[in-house]
Amino acid sequence: MSSSQTHASRSSYLGDSALEGLLRKAHARLDVADARRLVAGVLAAPEGEEPDAWHRLVASIRTPALTAQLEALKAEIASGQRPAHGLNDWSADRLVGLRSEMARLGLAGFLCPRGDEHQGEYVAPRAERLRWLTGFTGSAGLAVVLMGKAAMFVDGRYTLQVRSQVDGKSFEYRHLVDDPVGEWLASNVPRGAQIGYDARLHTPDGLAKLRVAAERGGIELVALEADPIDAVWTDQPPAPIAPIIVHPDRFSGRSGAAKRDELAEQLKRDGVAAAVISDPASIAWLLNLRGADVPHTPLPLSFAMLNADGGVDWFVEPMKLDDDVPAHLGNQVRLASPDAFGAALDGLGAQQASVLLDGATGSVWIHDRLTKAGARVVRGQDPCALPKARKNAAELAGSRAAHLRDGAALARFFAWVATEAPRGELDELTLSDRLLAARRQGEYFRDTSFDTISGAGANGAIVHYRSSPATNRKVLAGELYLVDSGAQYLDGTTDVTRTIAMGRPNAEQRDRFTRVLKGHIAIATARFPKGTTGSQLDPFARRALWDAGLDFDHGTGHGVGSYLSVHEGPHRISKLPNAVALEPGMIVSNEPGYYKTGAYGIRIENLVAVRELELQGAERAMLAFETLTLCPIDLALVEPALLVPDEIAWLDAYHARVAKMLRPLVDATTSAWLDQATRPLLAAAR
Amino acid sequence: MSSSQTHASRSSYLGDSALEGLLRKAHARLDVADARRLVAGVLAAPEGEEPDAWHRLVASIRTPALTAQLEALKAEIASGQRPAHGLNDWSADRLVGLRSEMARLGLAGFLCPRGDEHQGEYVAPRAERLRWLTGFTGSAGLAVVLMGKAAMFVDGRYTLQVRSQVDGKSFEYRHLVDDPVGEWLASNVPRGAQIGYDARLHTPDGLAKLRVAAERGGIELVALEADPIDAVWTDQPPAPIAPIIVHPDRFSGRSGAAKRDELAEQLKRDGVAAAVISDPASIAWLLNLRGADVPHTPLPLSFAMLNADGGVDWFVEPMKLDDDVPAHLGNQVRLASPDAFGAALDGLGAQQASVLLDGATGSVWIHDRLTKAGARVVRGQDPCALPKARKNAAELAGSRAAHLRDGAALARFFAWVATEAPRGELDELTLSDRLLAARRQGEYFRDTSFDTISGAGANGAIVHYRSSPATNRKVLAGELYLVDSGAQYLDGTTDVTRTIAMGRPNAEQRDRFTRVLKGHIAIATARFPKGTTGSQLDPFARRALWDAGLDFDHGTGHGVGSYLSVHEGPHRISKLPNAVALEPGMIVSNEPGYYKTGAYGIRIENLVAVRELELQGAERAMLAFETLTLCPIDLALVEPALLVPDEIAWLDAYHARVAKMLRPLVDATTSAWLDQATRPLLAAAR
Repeated sequence: MSSSQTHASRSSYLGDSALEGLLRKAHARLDVADARRLVAGVLAAPEGEEPDAWHRLVASIRTPALTAQLEALKAEIASGQRPAHGLNDWSADRLVGLRSEMARLGLAGFLCPRGDEHQGEYVAPRAERLRWLTGFTGSAGLAVVLMGKAAMFVDGRYTLQVRSQVDGKSFEYRHLVDDPVGEWLASNVPRGAQIGYDARLHTPDGLAKLRVAAERGGIELVALEADPIDAVWTDQPPAPIAPIIVHPDRFSGRSGAAKRDELAEQLKRDGVAAAVISDPASIAWLLNLRGADVPHTPLPLSFAMLNADGGVDWFVEPMKLDDDVPAHLGNQVRLASPDAFGAALDGLGAQQASVLLDGATGSVWIHDRLTKAGARVVRGQDPCALPKARKNAAELAGSRAAHLRDGAALARFFAWVATEAPRGELDELTLSDRLLAARRQGEYFRDTSFDTISGAGANGAIVHYRSSPATNRKVLAGELYLVDSGAQYLDGTTDVTRTIAMGRPNAEQRDRFTRVLKGHIAIATARFPKGTTGSQLDPFARRALWDAGLDFDHGTGHGVGSYLSVHEGPHRISKLPNAVALEPGMIVSNEPGYYKTGAYGIRIENLVAVRELELQGAERAMLAFETLTLCPIDLALVEPALLVPDEIAWLDAYHARVAKMLRPLVDATTSAWLDQATRPLLAAAR
Repeated sequence: MSSSQTHASRSSYLGDSALEGLLRKAHARLDVADARRLVAGVLAAPEGEEPDAWHRLVASIRTPALTAQLEALKAEIASGQRPAHGLNDWSADRLVGLRSEMARLGLAGFLCPRGDEHQGEYVAPRAERLRWLTGFTGSAGLAVVLMGKAAMFVDGRYTLQVRSQVDGKSFEYRHLVDDPVGEWLASNVPRGAQIGYDARLHTPDGLAKLRVAAERGGIELVALEADPIDAVWTDQPPAPIAPIIVHPDRFSGRSGAAKRDELAEQLKRDGVAAAVISDPASIAWLLNLRGADVPHTPLPLSFAMLNADGGVDWFVEPMKLDDDVPAHLGNQVRLASPDAFGAALDGLGAQQASVLLDGATGSVWIHDRLTKAGARVVRGQDPCALPKARKNAAELAGSRAAHLRDGAALARFFAWVATEAPRGELDELTLSDRLLAARRQGEYFRDTSFDTISGAGANGAIVHYRSSPATNRKVLAGELYLVDSGAQYLDGTTDVTRTIAMGRPNAEQRDRFTRVLKGHIAIATARFPKGTTGSQLDPFARRALWDAGLDFDHGTGHGVGSYLSVHEGPHRISKLPNAVALEPGMIVSNEPGYYKTGAYGIRIENLVAVRELELQGAERAMLAFETLTLCPIDLALVEPALLVPDEIAWLDAYHARVAKMLRPLVDATTSAWLDQATRPLLAAAR
């Protein structure tokens, strides 16, 4: 299907000297050695919607022969690699290798987290150290390896998965929350022992709790400069290399220079000389750039220093940049190799500068290097976090446009489902493939914004379910089907969940769905004074469930980026205390749910944007939400007797808007389905 | 009126040697010097409902002649004191005296907070240093005195009051939150200057924020062993001395020994040798004792150490105890003089013990003394706080009984108001006196639980209003009257607010009252899973106000003690984040409000107790509230069109219960009023 495969089948690689000649003729930026490094990096990045976009990193103008040889080189290098970089071939030898490395370093134990040096949600294959060491593919976890035993700590989402993926003879299974790591260490390691950790993969905030318990047990945590796993993982992939693109002002709404100037003013007011930024999403926002180094989140992995004079030092692999990027950045942004980052931290230290570092995203390595060099580290929030979260008018307009396209794709998908479902042949993977195909028709589509959750029946009750050939099942009559999915468009990021009934739902399903809907409406219609946090709104999403002794075990809403991460802070709607007030422009999901283990799952998710509310007679500055997502809510699952008139009015008005907005964008069959799916509730009940 | 005045008028004091003879004859515990010290302490304590209860502290059996001479001595000593211990006669000389003391100590400034060494809400006259220094009578504030200038910091409640009470030529007025003290210091004091504070009156937590700002300005905060105000306040009263009474097991529900054993087990599990407890309410709860040293909260001021072996060292003025108390305590509780407290802290240090201290209630003085002596201070929560908050069955039964009595008093009061109001002669002080008189008729009544807020019209909009002859006004037709009051009964503490309309309320008043009522009902009817905090429930109290762009600027609910403090932690219902989960037995107020400055105030307050909820089909362990307060809500202020059927059902059911419970306890006139006041809402509207 993809163009890279097409090219690869055409030519075979003619050798380095042939390529060298083609590169010279094209006035390429790279020699053959660079080209080999580039291709290895490309193979360690997601393929994406334009698998040959990387060619332009080689030369601005390329002959067909050069293009063919680049693809041939890529095929040759790929053929020499194990599939999935060897991440699927776990063996206990890996523990043996790690332990001999630990012995060499004098360590009684080693902590291996799931994460990279940017604390990102999606990581490159190179950073899949936990998966390599244990076989575990979940998005959160920690392995603790001692000389005689090892334990794998995961949270409640992964207690089943860890048993199927991680060898029980090599690892004890432990609960990340109920069995604190520090106490496990204290009871398995003698006083005075040293436990190592990769200082780049942990943050001061993240380590704090563990550190207290470990120190009470007389255990020393030792920050390591190099990760011992990298020493024993012989075919560890290199860092990914994917082309960086300019995110134009018409989408970002604001020039990078304007953003930098405003933040620099704030740094000056706070008496800080520089901020070290290690969250690539913040850097992408600050520089109005996007990348493709990891799946689902369009960002280039990099580090940056924002200085109080408005200048930025950006530490990024130079091969990721074509000529457009430096031109876009101007001379206030100084490019440097990632290797130069440590020396630059030392330079801040030599000036005895006050340096802002986010204690939740900046690593222990950065913190310690700054401190040792003489800098005064001020722990605070990443200065990009709040301005990035407050979407401006252009970003909101982009989000609305993206949601319109996304809504049309969803309508085509659900209309097709309505036609096909009665045959009883639809399965989870067929459904998610079809939804992806519908989205691909939309302008600006670049990627899904996360792995689609396509859950039939009991699989829908697994909150972080990911369908696979092994778990794939058909959606049977009388079952519910839950699909949680999203897309990355150049103008906005989407995330939507709908639950639909196949055939006639039963009374319990209708009761539960309607309680979830009441929670969803309570958030959608909330009016609240400025200063209110998402934690304060969260209970509105749960009250109708609480009334029946029910609840759901996840947050009600997460922030969403603007063609950036689908999970973006610092705001959220959650039971967990969060002191960040909701502010105009913030986008957040509204996704209450209900899950009956072994039976069915329900979730209704729209994205909403915070807006100012003008209200007759109001004594406070008030805020409310604008619902961005445009997709019908299955009326077959709504029990009207459980709704009050205001709730029915909201549902009908939402459906009228969905129909009006999407009708011009869809075919006649979809339009007919849309009319039926968005009819007034009480008309439906009759 | 009081018996002490009656006695005093009978005899004049015949001299120390006459008293000495009477004391000897009565086998008194005290000699004349002690008796003089006792009487001075009695005069520094509230008079209370039994003004001659202190006589038993002199001797178990007393002749009429002894009693008369004790009262005569009291009258003589009182006549030599300035009224209100001189607290009402502010003069700028006090600042002059303090500054010369500061000069002697080498201090550039001094911090004078409103508080005592127990961080209590109600303090003895001796601890009214801020009032003495500034004239300010509010419940929170801080004076900062420098050599050339001084500032008085108060919060939003007191910005008007401070201007009327504190001399603007001597003090700048500052806002405690908007104008941080540390920054004011930094901009008014040179680097290197020393600012003193009384180490007993500040906590590590309380000082933390101030300390950061001060240190940034190069200012040193110096902990003082002795308060410089005590050196210049020549007629500072002694510490109060009031009799301690046993709080019987039928009210406490649990013996002191059982409480101590359970907490000691917890200390052992936590690896702590002792807990230093400086909150007198915790000590009163732990030892099943009550006192009368300060107004409104029946506690003896004292300190205690709870040891991991279950023993307690109790540092209390021995003259407060009659023979019953040591017998009640048994030999696991060792009595010591307050003077011995410091040496006992040193003793813990000499053992290098781990000592638990609450960082919010334990003073810097305790913290530093422990640390200097060699102890390891573990900062945590007062171990009594949570078990004290979780009322047991006996305490809940006591609270219900107290609320029944309180409800009957309220019904008599409001029935009388209904009769008297049409004459238009009722004023705030008349009303609060009448309410107090109604409560005094009830069994076990000991005190009001705080200063009654009796606010007519615009005064009702002042959240912490206290009526005085200067502000007293009549309640006019068309106005609202807000009364927030409570009582201390031996079996329970009450706190209730009602707002009533004098004559016909207007549409706006009805709208606002009904929105407040909707919030009140939303809390009263909330069902929530175990683990839910009051912060999570708080928004339910506000939603109906938020819908109209309105809000109120205080918490929705505070914890309430069991014949203890009317404001008790650690739980609360508030916008402020609070991580303490609500647990069965916790009593908390439910008091949303609405305030229109210069016009009227509305608040509806009941106390509620957390209870377990059995619910058909529930999947979670659920909790709900039991409403304890029994008092009609003014139906004239309810707009039925704003209520949904479930809310009307709650109101009608509540009123039916109020009527059924109170009717047997009230006279015929009150009963007739009660029937009318508790009629079904829609019957009322017709």
